[in-house]
Amino acid sequence: MTIHRVGVALEPDYDIHIGAGALDLVPEMLSRRRRVAIVSQGVIADLYLDSIRSGLANSEVFLIGDGEEAKSLSTVETLCRRFAEFGLLRGDVVVALGGGVVGDTAGFAASVYYRGVDVLQVPTSLLAQVDAAIGGKTAVNIPEGKNLVGAFHQPIAVVSDTETLRSLSHREYRSGLGEIAKYALIADQASSATGLIELLSNSTDLVLARDPAVLADMVAMCSEIKAQVVAADPFERTGIRATLNLGHTLAHALETRGGYELTHGEAVSIGLVFAAELSQAAARISSETAKRYCSVVGSLGLPLQVPGGNELKAEDLLAIMRRDKKASGGLTFVLPGKDGLQLVEDPPTDALAHAFRAVGVAG
Amino acid sequence: MTIHRVGVALEPDYDIHIGAGALDLVPEMLSRRRRVAIVSQGVIADLYLDSIRSGLANSEVFLIGDGEEAKSLSTVETLCRRFAEFGLLRGDVVVALGGGVVGDTAGFAASVYYRGVDVLQVPTSLLAQVDAAIGGKTAVNIPEGKNLVGAFHQPIAVVSDTETLRSLSHREYRSGLGEIAKYALIADQASSATGLIELLSNSTDLVLARDPAVLADMVAMCSEIKAQVVAADPFERTGIRATLNLGHTLAHALETRGGYELTHGEAVSIGLVFAAELSQAAARISSETAKRYCSVVGSLGLPLQVPGGNELKAEDLLAIMRRDKKASGGLTFVLPGKDGLQLVEDPPTDALAHAFRAVGVAG
Repeated sequence: MTIHRVGVALEPDYDIHIGAGALDLVPEMLSRRRRVAIVSQGVIADLYLDSIRSGLANSEVFLIGDGEEAKSLSTVETLCRRFAEFGLLRGDVVVALGGGVVGDTAGFAASVYYRGVDVLQVPTSLLAQVDAAIGGKTAVNIPEGKNLVGAFHQPIAVVSDTETLRSLSHREYRSGLGEIAKYALIADQASSATGLIELLSNSTDLVLARDPAVLADMVAMCSEIKAQVVAADPFERTGIRATLNLGHTLAHALETRGGYELTHGEAVSIGLVFAAELSQAAARISSETAKRYCSVVGSLGLPLQVPGGNELKAEDLLAIMRRDKKASGGLTFVLPGKDGLQLVEDPPTDALAHAFRAVGVAG
Repeated sequence: MTIHRVGVALEPDYDIHIGAGALDLVPEMLSRRRRVAIVSQGVIADLYLDSIRSGLANSEVFLIGDGEEAKSLSTVETLCRRFAEFGLLRGDVVVALGGGVVGDTAGFAASVYYRGVDVLQVPTSLLAQVDAAIGGKTAVNIPEGKNLVGAFHQPIAVVSDTETLRSLSHREYRSGLGEIAKYALIADQASSATGLIELLSNSTDLVLARDPAVLADMVAMCSEIKAQVVAADPFERTGIRATLNLGHTLAHALETRGGYELTHGEAVSIGLVFAAELSQAAARISSETAKRYCSVVGSLGLPLQVPGGNELKAEDLLAIMRRDKKASGGLTFVLPGKDGLQLVEDPPTDALAHAFRAVGVAG
């Protein structure tokens, strides 16, 4: 078993363990814990509980519901109450076994129970392995917005078993690829020698076929990029961590607008095209670079345009973006450019119009 | 207006402003904030809102209920939803105007809304001014226990207007004196030259009459002691901060056991006597020191014994203490001794029996 290890240089620092079979590392990691509370969902628990529970003396499983509805303060309260019944104390540990919903909700519950107990993130979706499980962001939704209530709570470690990705549906896997395309563009902009953009361009077939070695390499590269960005700005204060929102300003607006059945990754992929076209129109990058970025998205089979976008008004999407959590009232995009990714406020109107046309939003 | 200023040496550091009329400092502190969300309770808002709101362009008031029932995740969710409706963003600020219930609940809501916005603590009860508002502990209750769900979230500043203490009921004021007696013992054990124990012993009448100058001195001394302890152990990891629980192991058990109508301060005062007697019986302190500690409690008119304690069983109280949040399964007391305050696990049975008899718990 080959396990990549990526360090996250925070105080205290922690490791991300990546590879096929990484789940088998979990029992050893938790062997000295008095009590282990495993939070998961039905299907995922059925598949993977045995691997992580074997040999753990005092563990209990707490299942939560599926979908964004489960990411609520009500679920957090239920978890905390059941942790208390279980006798979970400081020094004990919560394991978040599942995708983003489990990681965010269990992570937040762990951050507030007894004002914070340890959490081990064990992500089983591609999106969670490359993004949500790394960097300590946890949150739940309220009716007024997604992820509006949460905490920064770094895990004691992340265990990303890439074998779990092979059982994802085509749609779930593809959704994760949208975030991976984002990392490829981020790394290209940072001139990091991660080789991710080359891997996606040269081994597209193996990526789509979920080749075990390619999966492990790809998740390790993305984890490395995310770990570096998070370590440079753990609490999203300097603007560095905000560059991880490349493609997300439009993506969030499309998701909020709704009605298009886009996965998060699909929305991000359209957002990446939008950011590339906007930057080119604002003379920040060449048309060659913009094309290269769009072709990374396209080669992974991700959408380049908004389905049914000709029925949408650019002005409606702009209004949603202005209310974005990170916007503070203005209109902010993460855009590639000669000096790398930057936060750009209120780009030129004609450049915006060009970018909207490029993703198929008519007027 | 004489305002004492006590610094809290944390990263980032902040100040505690103490004195009659300190509320008038608030508008200037918040003058550059885009939006100000003031959380308070009905009666307190009626008394003090005008002082802190004068000249604030964009503030809104959010009232919560009275008593421990209001310290719930449901109140936190309501606050977060209303903050979102108000348009509160990162960079804006929450003001907690009230006693411990407001400070804990509003502080926790501020710590999780958008993963943390600034909070200004404006405590109006004696208990909150000398204890709850300083040091960043925030929490709400769940049916399984008090303060079981919360966060460490340091305020940007604390404003303790000691004039507000003059409108407290006799019972509320006395409850705060229990915590103040605790600080006097802590300072004595640390050989800090705060002069608090002398102030309480020599100016008892002025303390009980709520003399303005004495109130300001007393709150400033307690704030200084708490600030030092918190700065030495902000996340309660080394055991130093846990010494603030002097008297609290028995106090929590008495409050959990219930049925005696004790205020928190009264329960703490009995807990202080218990700790002193336990230490003396375990040969940690002399009988003179124990007597001196008990006389500080008694001179403030606080109870030395459990009312109706002869109907209580020591074994029942011990069982509750073993389930205490900070106990990790054992029985832990903060006890005075030759080397200062220390965490002591499972003290001798005969010393425990002596201490229970001393506070009037028969068998």
